[in-house]
Amino acid sequence: MSGIARTSATGGEGMLPELLAWSTSLHHDRAFVREDLLGSAAHVTMLARTRLVEVADAQRLREALLSMYADAEAGTLALPDGEEDVHMAVEAELGRRLGAVAGRLHTARSRNDQVALDLRLHVRGQVADALQRTTALVTMLSTRANDERETLIPAYTHRQRAQPTSVGFRLCAWASQLLRGAECLAFGLARADRLPLGSGACSGSSLPIDRNLTSFLLAFSQPTLNALDTVGDRDFALDFAWGATRVMVALSRLSTDVIDYATSEFGYVKLDGRIAAGSSMMPQKKNPDVFELVRGQSARAIGNVMSLLTLVKGLPNGYNRDLQEDRAALLSTGPLLRGALDAVTLALPHVTFDGVKSAAALADGSTQATDLAEALVRKGVPFREAYKAVGALVRRAIDDGIALSQLDPAVASALHPALDAEALRALDPAAAMRAKESIGGTGPRAVAEQIEALRAGAEALAVIASNTPTLANLAARIAAEPLEPA
Amino acid sequence: MSGIARTSATGGEGMLPELLAWSTSLHHDRAFVREDLLGSAAHVTMLARTRLVEVADAQRLREALLSMYADAEAGTLALPDGEEDVHMAVEAELGRRLGAVAGRLHTARSRNDQVALDLRLHVRGQVADALQRTTALVTMLSTRANDERETLIPAYTHRQRAQPTSVGFRLCAWASQLLRGAECLAFGLARADRLPLGSGACSGSSLPIDRNLTSFLLAFSQPTLNALDTVGDRDFALDFAWGATRVMVALSRLSTDVIDYATSEFGYVKLDGRIAAGSSMMPQKKNPDVFELVRGQSARAIGNVMSLLTLVKGLPNGYNRDLQEDRAALLSTGPLLRGALDAVTLALPHVTFDGVKSAAALADGSTQATDLAEALVRKGVPFREAYKAVGALVRRAIDDGIALSQLDPAVASALHPALDAEALRALDPAAAMRAKESIGGTGPRAVAEQIEALRAGAEALAVIASNTPTLANLAARIAAEPLEPA
Amino acid sequence: MSGIARTSATGGEGMLPELLAWSTSLHHDRAFVREDLLGSAAHVTMLARTRLVEVADAQRLREALLSMYADAEAGTLALPDGEEDVHMAVEAELGRRLGAVAGRLHTARSRNDQVALDLRLHVRGQVADALQRTTALVTMLSTRANDERETLIPAYTHRQRAQPTSVGFRLCAWASQLLRGAECLAFGLARADRLPLGSGACSGSSLPIDRNLTSFLLAFSQPTLNALDTVGDRDFALDFAWGATRVMVALSRLSTDVIDYATSEFGYVKLDGRIAAGSSMMPQKKNPDVFELVRGQSARAIGNVMSLLTLVKGLPNGYNRDLQEDRAALLSTGPLLRGALDAVTLALPHVTFDGVKSAAALADGSTQATDLAEALVRKGVPFREAYKAVGALVRRAIDDGIALSQLDPAVASALHPALDAEALRALDPAAAMRAKESIGGTGPRAVAEQIEALRAGAEALAVIASNTPTLANLAARIAAEPLEPA
Amino acid sequence: MSGIARTSATGGEGMLPELLAWSTSLHHDRAFVREDLLGSAAHVTMLARTRLVEVADAQRLREALLSMYADAEAGTLALPDGEEDVHMAVEAELGRRLGAVAGRLHTARSRNDQVALDLRLHVRGQVADALQRTTALVTMLSTRANDERETLIPAYTHRQRAQPTSVGFRLCAWASQLLRGAECLAFGLARADRLPLGSGACSGSSLPIDRNLTSFLLAFSQPTLNALDTVGDRDFALDFAWGATRVMVALSRLSTDVIDYATSEFGYVKLDGRIAAGSSMMPQKKNPDVFELVRGQSARAIGNVMSLLTLVKGLPNGYNRDLQEDRAALLSTGPLLRGALDAVTLALPHVTFDGVKSAAALADGSTQATDLAEALVRKGVPFREAYKAVGALVRRAIDDGIALSQLDPAVASALHPALDAEALRALDPAAAMRAKESIGGTGPRAVAEQIEALRAGAEALAVIASNTPTLANLAARIAAEPLEPA
Repeated sequence: MSGIARTSATGGEGMLPELLAWSTSLHHDRAFVREDLLGSAAHVTMLARTRLVEVADAQRLREALLSMYADAEAGTLALPDGEEDVHMAVEAELGRRLGAVAGRLHTARSRNDQVALDLRLHVRGQVADALQRTTALVTMLSTRANDERETLIPAYTHRQRAQPTSVGFRLCAWASQLLRGAECLAFGLARADRLPLGSGACSGSSLPIDRNLTSFLLAFSQPTLNALDTVGDRDFALDFAWGATRVMVALSRLSTDVIDYATSEFGYVKLDGRIAAGSSMMPQKKNPDVFELVRGQSARAIGNVMSLLTLVKGLPNGYNRDLQEDRAALLSTGPLLRGALDAVTLALPHVTFDGVKSAAALADGSTQATDLAEALVRKGVPFREAYKAVGALVRRAIDDGIALSQLDPAVASALHPALDAEALRALDPAAAMRAKESIGGTGPRAVAEQIEALRAGAEALAVIASNTPTLANLAARIAAEPLEPA
Repeated sequence: MSGIARTSATGGEGMLPELLAWSTSLHHDRAFVREDLLGSAAHVTMLARTRLVEVADAQRLREALLSMYADAEAGTLALPDGEEDVHMAVEAELGRRLGAVAGRLHTARSRNDQVALDLRLHVRGQVADALQRTTALVTMLSTRANDERETLIPAYTHRQRAQPTSVGFRLCAWASQLLRGAECLAFGLARADRLPLGSGACSGSSLPIDRNLTSFLLAFSQPTLNALDTVGDRDFALDFAWGATRVMVALSRLSTDVIDYATSEFGYVKLDGRIAAGSSMMPQKKNPDVFELVRGQSARAIGNVMSLLTLVKGLPNGYNRDLQEDRAALLSTGPLLRGALDAVTLALPHVTFDGVKSAAALADGSTQATDLAEALVRKGVPFREAYKAVGALVRRAIDDGIALSQLDPAVASALHPALDAEALRALDPAAAMRAKESIGGTGPRAVAEQIEALRAGAEALAVIASNTPTLANLAARIAAEPLEPA
Repeated sequence: MSGIARTSATGGEGMLPELLAWSTSLHHDRAFVREDLLGSAAHVTMLARTRLVEVADAQRLREALLSMYADAEAGTLALPDGEEDVHMAVEAELGRRLGAVAGRLHTARSRNDQVALDLRLHVRGQVADALQRTTALVTMLSTRANDERETLIPAYTHRQRAQPTSVGFRLCAWASQLLRGAECLAFGLARADRLPLGSGACSGSSLPIDRNLTSFLLAFSQPTLNALDTVGDRDFALDFAWGATRVMVALSRLSTDVIDYATSEFGYVKLDGRIAAGSSMMPQKKNPDVFELVRGQSARAIGNVMSLLTLVKGLPNGYNRDLQEDRAALLSTGPLLRGALDAVTLALPHVTFDGVKSAAALADGSTQATDLAEALVRKGVPFREAYKAVGALVRRAIDDGIALSQLDPAVASALHPALDAEALRALDPAAAMRAKESIGGTGPRAVAEQIEALRAGAEALAVIASNTPTLANLAARIAAEPLEPA
Repeated sequence: MSGIARTSATGGEGMLPELLAWSTSLHHDRAFVREDLLGSAAHVTMLARTRLVEVADAQRLREALLSMYADAEAGTLALPDGEEDVHMAVEAELGRRLGAVAGRLHTARSRNDQVALDLRLHVRGQVADALQRTTALVTMLSTRANDERETLIPAYTHRQRAQPTSVGFRLCAWASQLLRGAECLAFGLARADRLPLGSGACSGSSLPIDRNLTSFLLAFSQPTLNALDTVGDRDFALDFAWGATRVMVALSRLSTDVIDYATSEFGYVKLDGRIAAGSSMMPQKKNPDVFELVRGQSARAIGNVMSLLTLVKGLPNGYNRDLQEDRAALLSTGPLLRGALDAVTLALPHVTFDGVKSAAALADGSTQATDLAEALVRKGVPFREAYKAVGALVRRAIDDGIALSQLDPAVASALHPALDAEALRALDPAAAMRAKESIGGTGPRAVAEQIEALRAGAEALAVIASNTPTLANLAARIAAEPLEPA
């Protein structure tokens, strides 16, 4: 049966059924059947307008295609099995509905430019959706950051406690990396924005097609530049996979932090039972499964990038069937990213910071030694002298076996007169945190500015996402377009 | 509903249903439900023998598990949806069939060692199967090589015609790389050969379990060494993915050669319509889709390796939920490899070498210049002198604008007396090809030895593959094992 | 000695010398010593202006740093060995020149933000340089395309001859992919454009530093958003590696085409001896080494991307020493890309298209069957009917065993009246090629538009590249900046 | 100058000097000049024995080559710059020493099989060395494990405290994964064990060469199977990179554990100042730089694997110059692995376990709930009942807000009579740890067996490593071989 399908498409003798079954991409391509239908509806509109198909035929074709699109949206579209790909399956169904006129759709089109169109429309939709979700997460983190501007937590370098910061500052760090990931997505969105249709098999057409019209109908900014390049081009898939990977890597780093904070040893966050369950024997144990899974999934995103890069490296230009193997990586990327973003977005409200625990980690004062030195500098002590004095103080505390914060002020001022009570206040982690108001610092004003910038950045990208035409937009635009040639 | 499932497993309050649905691995895990059932059947046998479960209970459990296994083999096993993973789904079904006794299965086991078992059994089966197919392909190529020992074809370096060889020799080159791939698979098979069950959650058990017995029942050579290592170990998955990738890369190189040979420009092979179809407009065009797809699929295999490596890199020891994300890469590897091996195995008989066309590429003699020089050396001319003489001859032919093979013998012997008619016979590509009888060379005797070695190598590995226990073997072994403690 | 270096930096007891030698990044970091010096010169200028260092000290420091920068430019700067990294080596040399005042430089800075600065400055320079070269290559290809607008060559799909096109069109295809690569570089350039300095170890500073001033002095558009994010961020390295990989992949595909065209079998291009040499025995053989090496180097670029992605995946936020292992991938990327771009740019003028040979591949007319059908459509024959008529003609030619172009016109017009002499002119490859004037098509007007668009695109990016500040620009800007506080 | 070098090698007109400089691999190839010299010495010995070179000439050549080898060992060998590769550089130097006779070496050899030989010899040496070091580290960890069999530490799942184990058990887990890595190296060693020399350019030789003799002289077990395959084969490089990556990934996981344990929060290990230094302001802070760097370096190893896989994927068989780009990945792998192994081996003795701190993490008894249930089972309580009783006890402790270990025994026995004082002893972490004596468990006897197995495994592989012939072995063997033909 598959053999028949193939034969009807290509006129050749039948391929071995096992090979046809193995080589079909239909199971993958169902993911973009709606895109395929709208692409055809736009194409036939253009064909009518350029007198390449008669208006009456175009009318029937467009109506049938839009009706199949509506069915697909409703989940009721049945496509015949056993076709080589989604294009053939759509055509077969169209033939079933309309008869021979279905064949008119072929005019000035090949499966090479058709699949390039479907994939770009798919990518455009996936990227816009992911961009929306990523920016929403950035905004959520920003809001949360505002709530936690005074909650103390150590910042770490080399996984060692380094300096007193606020949880709000830390949330802004996560949001900053995510925002960069969102910017990569937005770049990917721009890269998908060219109409491939009209490239034909590889060199365009001698018929008077109007690619600008098709481009308008499908809401692309312009047609692609060169037909030969277009049919062999999967750069837009690479750009999508790259942006997705960047967001996933940002999520993986956030996840590592949450997993660490949720250990008994750190104890900086509590996970509630809506996102984490213990065992019957250890109900108090809350496993950070959500964050572990997200971190693990970032490895899949990386594998997808690698798969796509290796696929196209060294490939001859023009269409090669190798390109069909973009499907597994390309089509899994959207759901993978969406799943991870949603999981983190759902889970984070169930992650509570335990400010008492994290503040306690700063109590001995050792993480504030630099702050103390800077306090002396602010009082006018030369830099070197300030650091020397604090260095001596630190060693004295170690020698005495007590915490820096517990040293007798008299001992301190004996070491250097500027080490007075006011200066020693810098050992208070909250004071130290608040003092760092340099741009990008952990001080509350600096963090407020970061929150503002993050929100503005997220908002700007969210606008781009929400301005991206949806399939429903396209369907409406196509349906409204006159068919009669001017 | 998912929430209930989770709760019953863990006693905790319910996880958000969206997160449960997102985090479940059940859709993936169905791929190894049979392995899970046999693992449980072996486990309960061991529990009975070590008096940890009563014989009567064990009897009922084992029978139910083996019956579910038979259902799974028959494709009739229905597992409840909405469970967190295949282990919970199996237990739920077992509970449905047997009631509370189903819970006994938990004794001295955790999902951490259970999934490690299932995956290893899956890998063992997949590797053995792939090894069988790879060795069969090596053997097929060897047989084909024997038929083509006298068919001339240029060997290429830098994609330039380099030396006269036989098609048989070229087929042996493909087979050699595939055989190395098969050796990687065999290494992977050996690496999967250790029983993880009995590792518990991460540190073994204080109960008197008998891992050697379970190991015997599941036909592993021995239990794993260290429980903590075992539950966090996916090295066997890496070894599998690596072996698979190596075979896929070998197939990708073979594919590039076939694709090139099938061009109009090379024309060294013809693809028949059973494996390649043209278009209605260009029926004479035969596209090498099968080989393009295989080459493209090798990129997916590489992506899978990368995904798995990145997954485990830097992961804390012990079980981390990240590991669940091994599924997509691990479970797709077997079918990917099997599909590509079958496609190439099916397609190659429909690829015919056109010896006339490939011999013609050697006709002008230029590729035999080195052979001519070696012919002089064989006649006793010192190496340098021989090469100088042939170099002069080559330049003379170029100056005269004729092919080396068409130079007047008198001109040749004037350049060097040893360049007589007998020596010039080395310009005949067939003679030149036949003369290279060094080990590994393209001469017919040398190729015959290669064929012999390839067959022997393939046979040795095929034996390993066919000696690998199947699930049916395990089921029989487990069913036959007494339950009564000694 | 290394131990001493370390001790003087950190006050701790000495690290094992073997570990110090192993862990130093000095050999790598020499690549960005100039960036480090200018970063310090900008920093000390800011410190003076914010009264954190006295003007006189700042004056001496800045002069010494700019003098060392001049030495480094001249290749005469000697740095002491045995230091942990370039920052310590620079400070040691500065100490040698100026004495204790060298230590002032430490104020409000850490090695974490310093290395982030150096790497960004390095990346900015590398990207701008690569962007310049990539756009120049696009322009060169465009010019060449203009010369070859009438040279015929088959376009390929599935590596089979598909349609008649011009070499100019093919060159535009290469240029289009390269231009997309260049756009990725430009994106990377924008991503590097934020000043990390002032982030301190991880949380900013309590001193009244002025990051906007430093940002201005180093010609960044603004400071980074969040200090904790900044010190652990290597996204700019990922963006750079990604853009570079994209250009390399574009070059790899161009290379495959050239390598194929340069075979005896295709013969569409000749490589002259300035870029390819044969052997003494086969002087007529010209190996396409340049293009093979470039294709091979694209694999290194891909490996670099993978290495960087895996490096940061799952890493805790903040600075971790893991990040030092960005060096091999990051620092090799610039030279790799520059080398490949220069090699292709140098080599292409020595690659000559043999239009006679490539036109001959289109002579039998079979690749023009679609063009003939479109010609009928243009004459008013309905699409289906046109294709049916040409299909019949093709089969007839096959049955008669002659080329489509050699069929008797009478036979043709007997099959369909529209298949007259005028229509059959579409079988002429030049006519067929010229007729495809759809946007992006191979017709001369369409190609002329492509050339125009490519040039404009390249020009726009070249402007961005040439507007990127050089190190010399920065040095001048810093030297000109007053030191006195307002 | 480079042009001259090239010309003298190939007789062609000169390549552009910039391209020659860019395309040379000489800077990389210096890494295997000794291998190249010994390969030539073996080759000329064979040539003499097969009468292809006169004994007197062979004598001079072999002596000169072995003398150059001795110079290279001593670090005094100067090779001329400006040659295309190391083979040409060696020949040029040989020519300088001996005159025209140097050219005899060319007989029955090409640079294609020569570089394949050099790389295999390099890989063999690197792998043997790495195997030695890896097994030594396994042995060191085993010894350490023996010392720490009674030191308590929690095992983790999901990064949550899970069960009481010994540090010795944890060390065995690290060692187990490393041992698997070592097994991959050993597999790689076996894969490099075939002589490529004698394959010529791609199809062997018509001269009566004796590959078995060369194989013996260079201590390979046999010649490669097929010449065409051999010159395009880099599978041995892949096997090496793979084994190295596996060891690096094992080290990365060990490193993550050490980094976590070294945090203030875990505090399970102390790093002394010989391997970690704090800052002058925070001398008590010890950064785990060594382990961070090793973890980071594992990403480079992964990038190398990816680079090599992508390099060969889809490459036409036979030699393609692309293969030269194996160098960066191949040659950096040995030093990378050796450096990381040495660093960890040096550092671990300076990592001290703080058993008091890690035992304290088990003190509240919650991690021993499962052990308590198993204790009841051992007393004869049915499994379900035991778990139910302990579950109730756990909930009671939680309700009472006290640790499980602090519950009044009377309360316990009221819940279930078997929960008596003896049973409750299972809450003692040491008792719980000691009780897990299943194979692979954390009990001291089980760990002793693991140590034994690890030592035996390491020893077996160390023997393989130390039996691998060194270059010095080869030099002696070659020098001792008679030159006269039989």
